Amino acid sequence: MINTKYTLNQVIEATEPADPKWQQAARDHIEKLAIPPWSLGQLLVIGEQLSGIQRTIRPTVDKKMVITMAGDHGVVAEGVSAFPQEVTPQMVENFVKGGAGINILAKVAGAEVIVVDMGVAVDMPELVNNGAIIDCKIDYGTKNFYKEPAMTREQAIAALEAGINVAAKVIEEQGVNLLATGDMGIGNTTPSAAILAVMAEYPVSSVTGRGTGIDNTALLKKIKVIRESINYHQPDKSDPIDVLAKVGGFEIAGIAGVILGASYLKVPVLVDGFISTAGALIAKALCPQSLDYMIPSHQSEEPGHQLMWQALGLRPLLNLNFRLGEGTGAAVAMHLVESSARIMNDMLTFEDAGVTNGHERV
Amino acid sequence: MINTKYTLNQVIEATEPADPKWQQAARDHIEKLAIPPWSLGQLLVIGEQLSGIQRTIRPTVDKKMVITMAGDHGVVAEGVSAFPQEVTPQMVENFVKGGAGINILAKVAGAEVIVVDMGVAVDMPELVNNGAIIDCKIDYGTKNFYKEPAMTREQAIAALEAGINVAAKVIEEQGVNLLATGDMGIGNTTPSAAILAVMAEYPVSSVTGRGTGIDNTALLKKIKVIRESINYHQPDKSDPIDVLAKVGGFEIAGIAGVILGASYLKVPVLVDGFISTAGALIAKALCPQSLDYMIPSHQSEEPGHQLMWQALGLRPLLNLNFRLGEGTGAAVAMHLVESSARIMNDMLTFEDAGVTNGHERV
Repeated sequence: MINTKYTLNQVIEATEPADPKWQQAARDHIEKLAIPPWSLGQLLVIGEQLSGIQRTIRPTVDKKMVITMAGDHGVVAEGVSAFPQEVTPQMVENFVKGGAGINILAKVAGAEVIVVDMGVAVDMPELVNNGAIIDCKIDYGTKNFYKEPAMTREQAIAALEAGINVAAKVIEEQGVNLLATGDMGIGNTTPSAAILAVMAEYPVSSVTGRGTGIDNTALLKKIKVIRESINYHQPDKSDPIDVLAKVGGFEIAGIAGVILGASYLKVPVLVDGFISTAGALIAKALCPQSLDYMIPSHQSEEPGHQLMWQALGLRPLLNLNFRLGEGTGAAVAMHLVESSARIMNDMLTFEDAGVTNGHERV
Repeated sequence: MINTKYTLNQVIEATEPADPKWQQAARDHIEKLAIPPWSLGQLLVIGEQLSGIQRTIRPTVDKKMVITMAGDHGVVAEGVSAFPQEVTPQMVENFVKGGAGINILAKVAGAEVIVVDMGVAVDMPELVNNGAIIDCKIDYGTKNFYKEPAMTREQAIAALEAGINVAAKVIEEQGVNLLATGDMGIGNTTPSAAILAVMAEYPVSSVTGRGTGIDNTALLKKIKVIRESINYHQPDKSDPIDVLAKVGGFEIAGIAGVILGASYLKVPVLVDGFISTAGALIAKALCPQSLDYMIPSHQSEEPGHQLMWQALGLRPLLNLNFRLGEGTGAAVAMHLVESSARIMNDMLTFEDAGVTNGHERV
């Protein structure tokens, strides 16, 4: 287990919003660049965001890391996934081998990947002992929330604090200055859809999708399981820990913790797909300032994902029809964030470049 | 001037389409990867495209180059641009200094930038003599096509052949295996819109936008100039050289040539924004097989750009609200193409990774 240097309450209370003075300074700088105003669109918006986060108009995001959190889900007993639960530890092994999507895309991004066991249903002692994964296992998978709460409140808080402290460790010890979230957990679109339905008050049928590829019969079953579980547990949307405990997942809580830890330490964090964004909904509800530190990486194929972005008021950078998770969308978007930082640092102004500014002339 | 190793007619006659056998082999390989089927969406579609282009399921795009072509436009005399013509050579100097958007984004992409003078209105002898730019100057800017044809047919063919041979030179001499197009030329959204209106038969009012940022009065003037020029010259859409000669631009013809040269030599080429895609319309009309080699990088803010992609039947990878040109959107998309190639080479299959394939099980 990871040392709890920072508690959840401490982080929630002390996280500062982004600095509007530095956002303004960034906008002033951007408007002097030797380009038509704001003609690099979203990259400049991210440049402004990075400036507000790092309190500088010369932001740096050269030390990049993807934190991929794994967990299992008791609710798979209800037949809500196309893959069997044994795939969760198999994919964790694949991450360690370096042959999975996240490994390849993180490598192209120049980012390290760390894998955290938040609650896989089996032990993986050799991977823990040789340091290939970080052991933050809260339990051997969640309970089947169709029948009982997924976890206790204490477990939800422990999972959040594990995420906070994993993020804090890599930021403070390794100097990471750009984080990305990622997930692995067979069945985890089911708790993610449940969190969305509760937190943003959407109908279950509109937030539930095919995940890794279930057929129509399984989709109807999945909708029924989520709807009846919410009716039975009545999660309290004003109490995100209650929502996590009743219909959440360990890796989702861990991801929410990573976002909170990054925000507390003023580090930008790229939020990946449907599962990661469920974590972001929890993080924002616990600590609204954390929204300032989130960079929305991509729009996935899972239909509820765009409803999550709408609920957060964020517009994702990419739409490449991904539906894989692992942090793959966030890894691909790292390149864009790095481009934003380099623009803020290296692009010449009209004056420095000796270029006539048409807009001052007109 | 660049040596004419390959003529336009030779390239048009001998360009082969992508190979459907290798596309099928790529699809077969992709379906064995240890992910839900096609769950990396557009990146896998590009992986398939690269396989069909390079005739391998292990494509390589590690030697990347942006070719940014500059030219001036006589039609700026009609007041169609927010910036004065002197900005074209000033920006060419900025490219050489390394302080422009394309320099920064190409550097993050790991790509080289070469700058070609296709027809800037002034001489830049020091930049030509020290090898900082390639001199393919056809003339000192086009003629004002509101009053007379932009160029002669011979000039249009010479500009196309210059583009073909610049591409061929970097492919054959430097081993470039991924190209991107880019443009610089004050006023060049005007000929680009005219080309779109002619080639795809859209109304001028729907293809004409604000370019670098003209006001409503100038926009109405721009629409009038384009509409009346087309009415006067009656460019023949079945003869793309006639279209270039009457309402085109030297850098647009050069970009079309780069696309044709890349296609002839079986190298993928990322097409940038509104001006580059006008070149792509010309390239496809001259040689329909060239479409197989084009990768649509991004959707720009210029409203006609999406009509260009529709006319080509391509869906752009990115939409980041760019409206800069220079090759910036194509440079940002290089990272995605590289990711696609790495997935095809490095991702493990279900069998290699020892992961249970849920879809075979179901």
